[in-house]
Amino acid sequence: MAELILALDVVKRDEAISIAGSCAPHIGAIKIGYPLVLAAGLSIARDLKPLGLPLIADFKVADIPNTNTLITDLVFGAGFSAIICQGIVGTDSVRACVQAAHRHNGECYVVAEMSHPGAKEFFVPGTPEQIAANAMIAKADGIIAPATRPERVKALRGIVGKRKILSPGVGAQGGDIHAIAGLVDGVIVGRAIYEAKDPAKAAQEFARDLRT
Amino acid sequence: MAELILALDVVKRDEAISIAGSCAPHIGAIKIGYPLVLAAGLSIARDLKPLGLPLIADFKVADIPNTNTLITDLVFGAGFSAIICQGIVGTDSVRACVQAAHRHNGECYVVAEMSHPGAKEFFVPGTPEQIAANAMIAKADGIIAPATRPERVKALRGIVGKRKILSPGVGAQGGDIHAIAGLVDGVIVGRAIYEAKDPAKAAQEFARDLRT
Repeated sequence: MAELILALDVVKRDEAISIAGSCAPHIGAIKIGYPLVLAAGLSIARDLKPLGLPLIADFKVADIPNTNTLITDLVFGAGFSAIICQGIVGTDSVRACVQAAHRHNGECYVVAEMSHPGAKEFFVPGTPEQIAANAMIAKADGIIAPATRPERVKALRGIVGKRKILSPGVGAQGGDIHAIAGLVDGVIVGRAIYEAKDPAKAAQEFARDLRT
Repeated sequence: MAELILALDVVKRDEAISIAGSCAPHIGAIKIGYPLVLAAGLSIARDLKPLGLPLIADFKVADIPNTNTLITDLVFGAGFSAIICQGIVGTDSVRACVQAAHRHNGECYVVAEMSHPGAKEFFVPGTPEQIAANAMIAKADGIIAPATRPERVKALRGIVGKRKILSPGVGAQGGDIHAIAGLVDGVIVGRAIYEAKDPAKAAQEFARDLRT
């Protein structure tokens, strides 16, 4: 069964800690991006550690291998459990993140496909499949693919097999949780939870939707 | 004449401040990546501000437009003067960085081509040209292209015209400063300066090479 991952895309430390705390009973992991880390520092991982949930650094790392290694080492040194990197900059850059993650007993996920309009320019047909295949060669723990396109997720599942697929796009971006739940390992929800009047209740409802 | 840009790729705040200070008389700008910012915080910009040099955040931003905007706003809010984003994730993502940079009276540069081996996989022939053209449409202030491939820089100059080209790859990566100096607006040097026994002397020599 897919687990619910909270995309904690707020930029205030106190708000992040409060929302994460109230949603914790209903979620399986927390995904944190650069906006929160730049605002609050990598130490946000230490602040969220007491919740006992895996913390995924969604940094879409997209640099040369040596810089990717430095970034990944810092991320795991700060207490994160997983990192997300871009696959489109090349397999050696991906491998740098994977190897650093595994040295720290952490995980690395690779962005195979994105759903914003501009992504169509260079993530041309076949590119996500190639990125996913390269990610498997680099021994990544899984890929990121959009929940808004279940048919694409199915195609990528054929490539990654039993490794994990985490999917953003449910909620504010229009992805249907029932259409995607059976296809992926993690469903990432952001705004529809953290902008809700009652984030805990929203998280509880998404978690329930994942089970039914 | 091209200016010398120091890639300050160390991960200790004190070392960064010390090296930047000693090299300041010989350089035109300082480029800072995620490793230093993750280790020292965005406040490193405030620490380097007294040097009076432009500070370029080389974050190779590679996310969806909304996240790119959030990242760029934080970067300029911290006192940086320019940001570097990836062009391969799409023109809307680039435009988000450009518009946020310009709102803060800052600059945005777009990675058009990379020189690590894995870059060949998806930066296929024609892709750097398309990224550069898209960057111009998005009103970026310039592009990043490798000093190790002067013939490629020439091809991209034909697209960007009078907008700027900044080139990494001189020094440790083997780029010839004399071959690239006349083709670009900024030559980025990292290890060959900050790992030198006397970084100030190394910076002075690179600056002299740029003039001759």
